[in-house]
Amino acid sequence: MNGSSTALFTDQYELTMLAAALQDGTAHRTSTFEVFARRLPDGRRYGVVAGVERVLDAIDNFRFGDDELATVSKFLDPDTVSWLADYRFTGNISGYQEGELYFPGSPVLTVSGTFGECVLLETVVLSIINHDSAIASAATRMVSAAQGRTLIEMGSRRTHEEAAVAAARAAYIAGFTATSNVEAARRHGVPRAGTSAHAFTLLHTDADGPNEVAAFRSQIEAHGVGTTLLVDTYDITTGVENAIAVAGPDLNAVRIDSGDLGVLARQVRDQLDRLGATQTKIVVSGDLDEYSIAALRAEPVDAYGVGTSVVTGSGAPTAGMVYKLVEVDGIPVAKRSSNKETKGGAKAVVRTARDSGVVTAEVIYSASSAPPNAPNARIITQDLVHGGERTASPVTLEEARQNTAAGLATLPWEGLALSRGEPAIPTRFIDEEAHP
Amino acid sequence: MNGSSTALFTDQYELTMLAAALQDGTAHRTSTFEVFARRLPDGRRYGVVAGVERVLDAIDNFRFGDDELATVSKFLDPDTVSWLADYRFTGNISGYQEGELYFPGSPVLTVSGTFGECVLLETVVLSIINHDSAIASAATRMVSAAQGRTLIEMGSRRTHEEAAVAAARAAYIAGFTATSNVEAARRHGVPRAGTSAHAFTLLHTDADGPNEVAAFRSQIEAHGVGTTLLVDTYDITTGVENAIAVAGPDLNAVRIDSGDLGVLARQVRDQLDRLGATQTKIVVSGDLDEYSIAALRAEPVDAYGVGTSVVTGSGAPTAGMVYKLVEVDGIPVAKRSSNKETKGGAKAVVRTARDSGVVTAEVIYSASSAPPNAPNARIITQDLVHGGERTASPVTLEEARQNTAAGLATLPWEGLALSRGEPAIPTRFIDEEAHP
Repeated sequence: MNGSSTALFTDQYELTMLAAALQDGTAHRTSTFEVFARRLPDGRRYGVVAGVERVLDAIDNFRFGDDELATVSKFLDPDTVSWLADYRFTGNISGYQEGELYFPGSPVLTVSGTFGECVLLETVVLSIINHDSAIASAATRMVSAAQGRTLIEMGSRRTHEEAAVAAARAAYIAGFTATSNVEAARRHGVPRAGTSAHAFTLLHTDADGPNEVAAFRSQIEAHGVGTTLLVDTYDITTGVENAIAVAGPDLNAVRIDSGDLGVLARQVRDQLDRLGATQTKIVVSGDLDEYSIAALRAEPVDAYGVGTSVVTGSGAPTAGMVYKLVEVDGIPVAKRSSNKETKGGAKAVVRTARDSGVVTAEVIYSASSAPPNAPNARIITQDLVHGGERTASPVTLEEARQNTAAGLATLPWEGLALSRGEPAIPTRFIDEEAHP
Repeated sequence: MNGSSTALFTDQYELTMLAAALQDGTAHRTSTFEVFARRLPDGRRYGVVAGVERVLDAIDNFRFGDDELATVSKFLDPDTVSWLADYRFTGNISGYQEGELYFPGSPVLTVSGTFGECVLLETVVLSIINHDSAIASAATRMVSAAQGRTLIEMGSRRTHEEAAVAAARAAYIAGFTATSNVEAARRHGVPRAGTSAHAFTLLHTDADGPNEVAAFRSQIEAHGVGTTLLVDTYDITTGVENAIAVAGPDLNAVRIDSGDLGVLARQVRDQLDRLGATQTKIVVSGDLDEYSIAALRAEPVDAYGVGTSVVTGSGAPTAGMVYKLVEVDGIPVAKRSSNKETKGGAKAVVRTARDSGVVTAEVIYSASSAPPNAPNARIITQDLVHGGERTASPVTLEEARQNTAAGLATLPWEGLALSRGEPAIPTRFIDEEAHP
């Protein structure tokens, strides 16, 4: 246990189910739970799994100390409380690596052990994977829309303070270049960015009125010409003129945060070039999402600052994955209530591809069978935890980022379209095909 | 300082601005920043301020210890780092109480002090207030749609694990009855709820197949007839029959989590009544939002379990408030770039009302003037912090909840409509009227 306890990031019903199952003996049954999404958010063509490493850390820290036991003893019997005092996950977890793509029905994580030890993890597992995957999935669309241009995540102020840190991490996995969030830099090693806001220009107001030149001079004196000057506090043309007058033509960048960004980027590019600042970059920000990023493709923009849309999942703030019991003592189990059917049994996945590497299907098969013998099939399901211990060292942030980039490179071209559509590849359940 | 440091929940640019402002001497200028929303989320008629108490706690814990200083010294000069080592907010904060309603332009918080001490707080203040207010604003619409019926927040799994705790708190302020989140109960005292999931029924599967009766019997034995039995794992009619057969007619409640909830609620109510379980309540859950809650008004539903929509703000996952510098050394300052104008100067608010108590306008005036002399004007702006110290004891969760309920009771009837519309009352800036 390397962090504070995650044991109370739990819905009460997991604990009351545990109490009843301990009392009737079923808590000890060997059980398998599966994390999957019934569908992708409306019109999305793929999803990106993020949060797996945070999930595994949270499970390591899922322990009941004195504080946690005092809380649960308010509504649980003493036998259950003493069972919780010794809690430590000792089961197995397999699933998708951090940064892997997923599709409807993909068994993203499979958690096996006793019912008691697995049922408790539902909420914390889903909270992490639903949040982080929602952000990574939206961010990846922005990355593909930006076509190699720099993307800076600056949405911390638009989401919960801790969610902001996880969002910065997920956006980096998706391919963002940097974050404004200092804690994400410290905790996860995400590259940092950020120079100044309108407040700094406004601060340089005196009895004679606004003094943009004084603000720019101060910023250049403190941080050198490698900084970015924000030129739209007052008049943009004057702002650009002041910026180059103060910093000279070696100024790294100017930022435009309002107005018609495409029109302004062209005007500012012309002006910068006329002033000899041909290498000075243009950063744009202000309510950008994947669509406006794509719409700016033809404009002379070097970098995008993206806030609200990335940290709120651009219309899909949760990945909507569920954690469902699929097998008990080797017997597949499945809910039969309307519209929420689940497929029983523990599962594993290969992703098939053409010889070119372009993927063709997500093939889901019974975990107790051998992988199907398909050409170019890549095994997606990895052993992550065995007997409560990690089977390998954690996937680093850079590896996760490479996983996402590699996954995107294998999608058929229509899978990268921003418009609403079907999932980029079909999901096939091998059992269904064998027994139609 | 009662918690862990919040100092790195900060965008890097706040720190680089500080460094430049310390170097040129402007960091010491007396400054006022204002937190406000330019507009409400699309079609909303009011907003609910939540997170104020969390903001004040976060400011108390905004301190740079060794870890934080090591991080910022990677990109800041030694003078700035040593200034941060002594950081402690010593300014003033005024604003809206936890649970108060707000409208476009309402100066929700006003933070005054030196530029250096105030500029650093932008991100952490906005993260908290934007998240918590987004949840409270959405939740309040559900509360008014539920018209007194019980609402249980059960969305933890659909949002970041820490955001879930704050969301449970915000939903309770809005008028929700309880939360499934155990940590929210521990940390904030929100009432808890939760009994069982489909997994518990599925667990009771043996060689002979599903055994719903065994699952219900186990739950009743462990928790008594005061529990809620989930009746839709297999066939709902059989589920209800099994529930009453096992628990008897004194069963507290059954839950339906799928299907056409209105139709099913009527069928289940008839069936329960026929079985003599006339006092057994019906809880419904499954993708509910304010619109589906309202649509179920005529049905025999006793309680709603609400998940995704409440924790994601029901289409508006952030309140979109900003933190803007409005005054420096007594001089009002304002950005003039297109579409993002701000109004300079420190402000305060009264809300005017008819003799009936129904509110008529949000009246914003200069904080340096006396409150306008309007009939039934209630002073909204409160002194919260003076010289870095709280001016009063924290607003309790119950008081915040009463603030929201009291606010809703004063809205004109059209302000409570769920449909898209204009803000329930207009925002008037007194300066504008005096100097048109």
